[in-house]
Amino acid sequence: MSLNTTPRGQRLHIALFGRRNAGKSSLINALTGQEVAIVSDVPGTTTDPVAKAMEILPLGPVMIIDTAGIDDVGELGALRVKKSFEVLNRTDLALLVIDPGRGFGPYEEEVLKRCEEYKVPVVTVINKIDLYPEVVRNGLGVELASPKVFVSALTRQGIEELKQVIIQHAPKDWTMPTIVGDLIQPGDLVVLVIPIDKAAPKGRLILPQQQVIRDIIDHDAVAIMVKERELKHALSHLGVKPRLVITDASAYLKAAADTPPDVLFTSFSVLFARYKGDLETLVMGVKAVDKLRPGDRVLIAEACTHHPIEDDIGRVKIPRWLRSRVGGELHFDVVAGSGPLPENLGDYKLIVHCGACMLNRKEMLSRLMQARRAGVPIVNYGVIMAHMHGVLRRALSPFPALQALLEPAEEEMELELELLRRVRG
Amino acid sequence: MSLNTTPRGQRLHIALFGRRNAGKSSLINALTGQEVAIVSDVPGTTTDPVAKAMEILPLGPVMIIDTAGIDDVGELGALRVKKSFEVLNRTDLALLVIDPGRGFGPYEEEVLKRCEEYKVPVVTVINKIDLYPEVVRNGLGVELASPKVFVSALTRQGIEELKQVIIQHAPKDWTMPTIVGDLIQPGDLVVLVIPIDKAAPKGRLILPQQQVIRDIIDHDAVAIMVKERELKHALSHLGVKPRLVITDASAYLKAAADTPPDVLFTSFSVLFARYKGDLETLVMGVKAVDKLRPGDRVLIAEACTHHPIEDDIGRVKIPRWLRSRVGGELHFDVVAGSGPLPENLGDYKLIVHCGACMLNRKEMLSRLMQARRAGVPIVNYGVIMAHMHGVLRRALSPFPALQALLEPAEEEMELELELLRRVRG
Repeated sequence: MSLNTTPRGQRLHIALFGRRNAGKSSLINALTGQEVAIVSDVPGTTTDPVAKAMEILPLGPVMIIDTAGIDDVGELGALRVKKSFEVLNRTDLALLVIDPGRGFGPYEEEVLKRCEEYKVPVVTVINKIDLYPEVVRNGLGVELASPKVFVSALTRQGIEELKQVIIQHAPKDWTMPTIVGDLIQPGDLVVLVIPIDKAAPKGRLILPQQQVIRDIIDHDAVAIMVKERELKHALSHLGVKPRLVITDASAYLKAAADTPPDVLFTSFSVLFARYKGDLETLVMGVKAVDKLRPGDRVLIAEACTHHPIEDDIGRVKIPRWLRSRVGGELHFDVVAGSGPLPENLGDYKLIVHCGACMLNRKEMLSRLMQARRAGVPIVNYGVIMAHMHGVLRRALSPFPALQALLEPAEEEMELELELLRRVRG
Repeated sequence: MSLNTTPRGQRLHIALFGRRNAGKSSLINALTGQEVAIVSDVPGTTTDPVAKAMEILPLGPVMIIDTAGIDDVGELGALRVKKSFEVLNRTDLALLVIDPGRGFGPYEEEVLKRCEEYKVPVVTVINKIDLYPEVVRNGLGVELASPKVFVSALTRQGIEELKQVIIQHAPKDWTMPTIVGDLIQPGDLVVLVIPIDKAAPKGRLILPQQQVIRDIIDHDAVAIMVKERELKHALSHLGVKPRLVITDASAYLKAAADTPPDVLFTSFSVLFARYKGDLETLVMGVKAVDKLRPGDRVLIAEACTHHPIEDDIGRVKIPRWLRSRVGGELHFDVVAGSGPLPENLGDYKLIVHCGACMLNRKEMLSRLMQARRAGVPIVNYGVIMAHMHGVLRRALSPFPALQALLEPAEEEMELELELLRRVRG
């Protein structure tokens, strides 16, 4: 997940506007969890607007554009302000940061006017509520058409809500810049394992398979497709080791067994969990499976109202496996459809979400944020299926930071399963 | 194009019915151009209905089911008749063969009744018109709802028309059993060259690419996809030589140059010319290019009424190339849309047809048959483009019988071009 290999043009561009010392740079640090901007209480520390590639969890890679104070003074200051507004040309979303000690005035009006002019959605962020707690109750004394969020960049209060609002106002077609391109180098061989079963459409490839192939060849690498039965044969007929093997979840065990241990291994569903949402949140969620106790409530969340099939993955397979793992009864509720998750999320010990093929990234991230804010672990079908098959650690091999999140217990179970597989041949 | 590797289930199944000695077996020979059925004038030579895999040009692979005479006598004869009608369970199209000397009677009525019962379309074939020429004028004395064709299996009169009618009554979804599967063996490596230019849809593969990938992995082989720039690199990183390289037509020269001479080489458009129609007819058609003279009329036939783009392949590129090749003016007419080709086909020295992505195999074959019957050479964009790039012989390497159809002159030109390419590097 190298930041450097992500093309600038495809990241969500977020520009921050506000008077000098309103706390724009501190807010960036609070959003990214890093000390990246120069924070100082000397007004006017930021001069030329600089776009910086950053990562906001769980939003993923973004481009943050910090601008000079809109109240900058003097000839040079006026030039800085002019340059600040020019960034609206390449901005997806603007944050107007307000210091309650100074309030909403002509400077802030100017920002809203300019954003309207450039048709850039704007979110008003009232900062420093640790210093001015009364502003949350009393407001700014103006009626704003645009959404507003109260935060403290210092105490991080309201930051999660701000992320949620940022997601809501991101462009509809906002995606991750790449599905797999950041994991490979030009010229790499990438093997895709595609079982042909009754579910496979005749004479076609499903869209996720097409997207991964395109992403591979768009990144100057070589995409190699086989059924699971030919994987071993194909690997033995390549002159070099492939960089990565990506399997369909239905062939997890066979593909994992036939892929040499020193070759990176993952699945389409793990890649799309990252592409369509946030893999880290989901991996954190899977750990809650081990903490489930008989009698706990689990929410199965489906994005579409499909007709449940026999042996349905969300309504039959996963509940059956969870009950057997817990060794007792669990209470399952199912919600289906788009829009936010139900308000009583706090009643659940775990949310199991579908693969979200009918949701865009915005919608899925919104739901992940909703679960995070409610403090409820959330996992999706792809990640929990990998866990059920004992291959999650292996399927996270391209993401060592996430692998490290898994409990040692999980590792032991994997080793046991690996031994079992070898014994069975 | 081995007949044996084509699965039986996907071939067009044609069953022949008729009285003993109506000439069913001779008709099969006339359709296939081979002496395959046992022909004899002893009534009742055919006993148990036998399904045989055969090739009818230009229809491609079919399954012919020859049945016992429907007027067979005795206990054994009655059993044979019963078995004959049972084949209607696996028949796409029935031919009712009539000997005008015996006429249309209760036996024939029974066949039509049974076909209606099994919902199998039936074509009445009045045979032996060399012996009974008056039947063509006078008919059979009955009104038939189903189509009828007058033929002589002996002189081959009417056989081309019968093929046309067979195509018209084939099932709508009738296709070739495979696009590329008959050219490869299980475990083979097949490399697909897919240039990513502005015309490529973002994040997807076009349907023909998906179909070829699926066909390869469905046949237990390995599909390897690269952009043209990475072809050489990919070939050098495979442990074995690939069986076949298939290129997009837009990368003909680069892909041909980078593919070792001992590796089979073709293009998506050549494969689809075969899958969607008849490659032999089109290769015969390309030879007419060399016979064009200034002043000749050429018909450009497009299957859809797309908005012509600048540098349109059918309206600009091919006419420009043909004019320069002929060294003078040519008269081009363009027809666009589905349905039969215009009736004045005889006015043209060459028909250049589009890739037929909007036509099914039935419709494209119908048009090829129409051109054949009018005696006008027909070629399609894919085949003529390969010829224009001097790579047609190379692109026919999986089809040596068709390669042999090309003039030596063509070969010499290819060699010249090859030399030119090497000189230019």
